[in-house]
Amino acid sequence: MTATSTEPRTTTALTGRPLAEGIRRDARERAAALAAAGTPPRLVVVTATDDGSALWYVRSIAKAAAAVGIDCDVRDLGPSASRARIRDTLRDLNRDPRVHGIILQTPLPEGLSPAGLAVEIDPAKDVDGANPASLGRCAAGLPGFAPATAEAVVRLLDHHGVELAGRDVAMVGRSLVVGTPVALLLLERDATVTVCHSLTAELRDRTSTADIVVVATGVPHLIGADHLREGAVVVDVGTNATDDGLTGDVDADAVEGVAGALTPVPGGVGPVTTALLLSHTVRAADRATG
Amino acid sequence: MTATSTEPRTTTALTGRPLAEGIRRDARERAAALAAAGTPPRLVVVTATDDGSALWYVRSIAKAAAAVGIDCDVRDLGPSASRARIRDTLRDLNRDPRVHGIILQTPLPEGLSPAGLAVEIDPAKDVDGANPASLGRCAAGLPGFAPATAEAVVRLLDHHGVELAGRDVAMVGRSLVVGTPVALLLLERDATVTVCHSLTAELRDRTSTADIVVVATGVPHLIGADHLREGAVVVDVGTNATDDGLTGDVDADAVEGVAGALTPVPGGVGPVTTALLLSHTVRAADRATG
Repeated sequence: MTATSTEPRTTTALTGRPLAEGIRRDARERAAALAAAGTPPRLVVVTATDDGSALWYVRSIAKAAAAVGIDCDVRDLGPSASRARIRDTLRDLNRDPRVHGIILQTPLPEGLSPAGLAVEIDPAKDVDGANPASLGRCAAGLPGFAPATAEAVVRLLDHHGVELAGRDVAMVGRSLVVGTPVALLLLERDATVTVCHSLTAELRDRTSTADIVVVATGVPHLIGADHLREGAVVVDVGTNATDDGLTGDVDADAVEGVAGALTPVPGGVGPVTTALLLSHTVRAADRATG
Repeated sequence: MTATSTEPRTTTALTGRPLAEGIRRDARERAAALAAAGTPPRLVVVTATDDGSALWYVRSIAKAAAAVGIDCDVRDLGPSASRARIRDTLRDLNRDPRVHGIILQTPLPEGLSPAGLAVEIDPAKDVDGANPASLGRCAAGLPGFAPATAEAVVRLLDHHGVELAGRDVAMVGRSLVVGTPVALLLLERDATVTVCHSLTAELRDRTSTADIVVVATGVPHLIGADHLREGAVVVDVGTNATDDGLTGDVDADAVEGVAGALTPVPGGVGPVTTALLLSHTVRAADRATG
């Protein structure tokens, strides 16, 4: 289609809810089969924080787990838990055959490194891909769990039929839980990937030539119209609580009509991420019992 | 310095030999101290191939190890070794307290995945960073061994005073042993990194805007003058045996006067890689005995 008409262009919403619903439905069926066989899938979320939004997120996971038939325990160690206490809790959970999935919720008490503790999670139970060994396995194409948010980005692009091979991707953000694993997963899918971050000299130059822009920075409305080429596909991983409610890292109003497609916030990457955590837990239980 | 003179520009040679010599000297001193304390550092190279250049490379490692006081055994399993045989050998070496470093030499017998077997190597003995868990640890900034070639690229740039933070890097090649870990290491050093590969649409567009171009493709002379911006720093990881002798992935004659600096082949990344394997082995022995 060439742009000879004078109609304003519109931006397609890359919604995540139908995809999430499909993933949850599949998880629910497999969870029911496992429960019928006497092994209901079980997920444990370890928390060591009093951060309100983290605890809200954990409750939403527990509720979503219950809805698909996964037993979900929250093991709250409190905001002053020591490194040794968290480590020993993870080791106990590794050894417990009734536990199939383990999530170590961030933030942790000050001074504790999430990756430094996540190395303790058995990769077979590491349903949010937090252990650096899981990251390496995902780079190597070996079986293992990718961080759910990173996998959600790729699943969402696939679901909406966005071609990846040979396309230029700008990944804005380099965290271990999103930016880095998204880059590794998209490289495996034959995209050409540029990882940008807060020290990138001219962010606009990097993003405005890309076919696909994925943003995970935690900076509300960082990406505007002049960061994008016309028709770019934009995935917004940001979920920032502001006075105006939940908002993404992309200024959705500003990029309307410039971006060819954009994931909404909320309703884009988020629901797919939660659904994948449940799906991973069921898969871990399947393997453990199979 | 501004380019007002009409003198032809010259390309600086980023030699690796002086850096390698310094790394070896340090390894030799620490190896002597360990031997004096009754624990000479020991490296085992596992081979399962009759590939001539691989075996030549292994002999050169063994010779370099001997020269710094590291005992080096080559455990040759032959070109038809089974997966189980290689796996069991690696597990035995993990358990052997006299062995501090383990290298699994590629190529492996057809059908065997190097990463799939390298997951067996204890990360504490994985001196060439071949276990995907080592890759993940290096992405997470946790203690562990990076693949020696990837670390050599960064050490060489540091040695020659090339600034990394905020610079644009084009990494050409995405292998697990070079391209991917180089990208991860340079991201950790605050560079903006684009990973390109054989399916990248317009390689020239990606490389010709970069401040630093790292090439690891195994394609002789892939990179010429029109791939580079004037003054770019170029690291050539390629070592291709051709009728004209050993040659890199960069056409050195063509880029002379365009590249600001270029690593020679041979004499650039190669000697630093070998020196780092020895240094890693001594460090592993230090930790095991410390």
